[in-house]
Amino acid sequence: MSGSGEDPVITPEQVQQLFERLKSEAESSGYHLNPNVEFTKGLVEGLLVNEARYGYWACPCRLASGQKEEDLDIICPCDYRDPDLDEYDTCYCALYVSQDVVDGKKKATRIPERRPEERASSSSGRAEGVRGTSAGSAAAQPGPAAASLEALGFPVWRCRVCGYLCARGQPPAVCPICKAKKERFERFL
Amino acid sequence: MSGSGEDPVITPEQVQQLFERLKSEAESSGYHLNPNVEFTKGLVEGLLVNEARYGYWACPCRLASGQKEEDLDIICPCDYRDPDLDEYDTCYCALYVSQDVVDGKKKATRIPERRPEERASSSSGRAEGVRGTSAGSAAAQPGPAAASLEALGFPVWRCRVCGYLCARGQPPAVCPICKAKKERFERFL
Amino acid sequence: MSGSGEDPVITPEQVQQLFERLKSEAESSGYHLNPNVEFTKGLVEGLLVNEARYGYWACPCRLASGQKEEDLDIICPCDYRDPDLDEYDTCYCALYVSQDVVDGKKKATRIPERRPEERASSSSGRAEGVRGTSAGSAAAQPGPAAASLEALGFPVWRCRVCGYLCARGQPPAVCPICKAKKERFERFL
Repeated sequence: MSGSGEDPVITPEQVQQLFERLKSEAESSGYHLNPNVEFTKGLVEGLLVNEARYGYWACPCRLASGQKEEDLDIICPCDYRDPDLDEYDTCYCALYVSQDVVDGKKKATRIPERRPEERASSSSGRAEGVRGTSAGSAAAQPGPAAASLEALGFPVWRCRVCGYLCARGQPPAVCPICKAKKERFERFL
Repeated sequence: MSGSGEDPVITPEQVQQLFERLKSEAESSGYHLNPNVEFTKGLVEGLLVNEARYGYWACPCRLASGQKEEDLDIICPCDYRDPDLDEYDTCYCALYVSQDVVDGKKKATRIPERRPEERASSSSGRAEGVRGTSAGSAAAQPGPAAASLEALGFPVWRCRVCGYLCARGQPPAVCPICKAKKERFERFL
Repeated sequence: MSGSGEDPVITPEQVQQLFERLKSEAESSGYHLNPNVEFTKGLVEGLLVNEARYGYWACPCRLASGQKEEDLDIICPCDYRDPDLDEYDTCYCALYVSQDVVDGKKKATRIPERRPEERASSSSGRAEGVRGTSAGSAAAQPGPAAASLEALGFPVWRCRVCGYLCARGQPPAVCPICKAKKERFERFL
């Protein structure tokens, strides 16, 4: 399996194995793979192809630079997955979807690219709009620690059931620890 | 299955499926369902009845208002589960119990109602005492972020083994990440 | 099974059961048991022997005092496991190893004792060097909450993918929530 030009050979067994691992890891933390198994396995194969090419799971729906440092934000799961799930019920690839999509209450559709334009300069054919987000800029600059509470890069959310804390734009759909839903979170910092 | 008066029909298969899901989710984060399986399945059936009636898992041992906003704190797992496990080795319903109860070292008994009286005004027949707690008042008011470390609504605990952080009255019985016990936590904030 | 002198009898079934539990708990949070199963089961048996002797899982590779309060930092998983995995790809016992060791890219070798000398005064025959670390001193003194952000005992790391927060010397090898790798963490506080 060489990294020079030719497509690496991925076996159905490799795809099945990674599919099962990702599915199990997703479920245990309150995430969901797209229930369309064939579609999802296509994306999983894309991850394995990119792993063979680049050495890491570059997003199968974006054009990777091949430089890990530049691609860190689009290694799957990407920095944009969770804000996209919050806002659109799906990640950019539709590998991960919300509970509502799993339940058939919503449909995963094409969504705009959240990755900042300057990070996607070797741009993908699919990019169709770019919004600067705090997620994006935080990813761009690993930055120093906040000097004060006012300077925190993200709000800190607290699960009222179990006390779990996380720092992100919005609370997660489900608490990864106790599975309480988003509405059970409160702003903590 | 209508929400108007008549009891919804819940099948044993539905009860079994939710029982298994709750048991698995509990164990993976260091919680335990009551080992009395028949008793526990009765409570699980109560959750399914309430889901059919109200659209959410209102606590099966409390009287729900039917208004989700008013009942948020008693959607199972309720805001009072963890402080009750800390103090009494059981939640109000005895759906969740401590390791000591599982091991037969302690017995789950009737415990006082931790939910503040003003929140339970359409009160349950079982309520037998009310204590105002920080858990209760925090739930009542999702409140703004703390402006300073002194103003944090809950202490932040740190697992000395893996660094897990959570904000609650006391540390959890078991670290949900590395399973270290309560005594391995230290106050962090 | 008495605690007075004689070795407690541990059955292969007990070892197998605890081995499977520890393996499952480790994998679900991004940790790994040593893939040498026979070696690992020997350590698991040591944990069970210590549990019978002392009532807790004192580290099988260190000399326990028998006083739980004095041994808290070396109850498995010990306070030193994660910094040792970060720095040496193995814990002191080699019960836990890094992904690189599992993959055969690195070998688990003897590592220095991270536990501060003053805590190991009833010292183990294996101790071969001591370094004072923040992990060690924090363990020694459960201390009060930090009065200011500057006074925090550990840096707080944020997973850029899911927002998970933890306070430790370095970020974990893998985010226990979303399984993103160490390089996806940023300093938060």
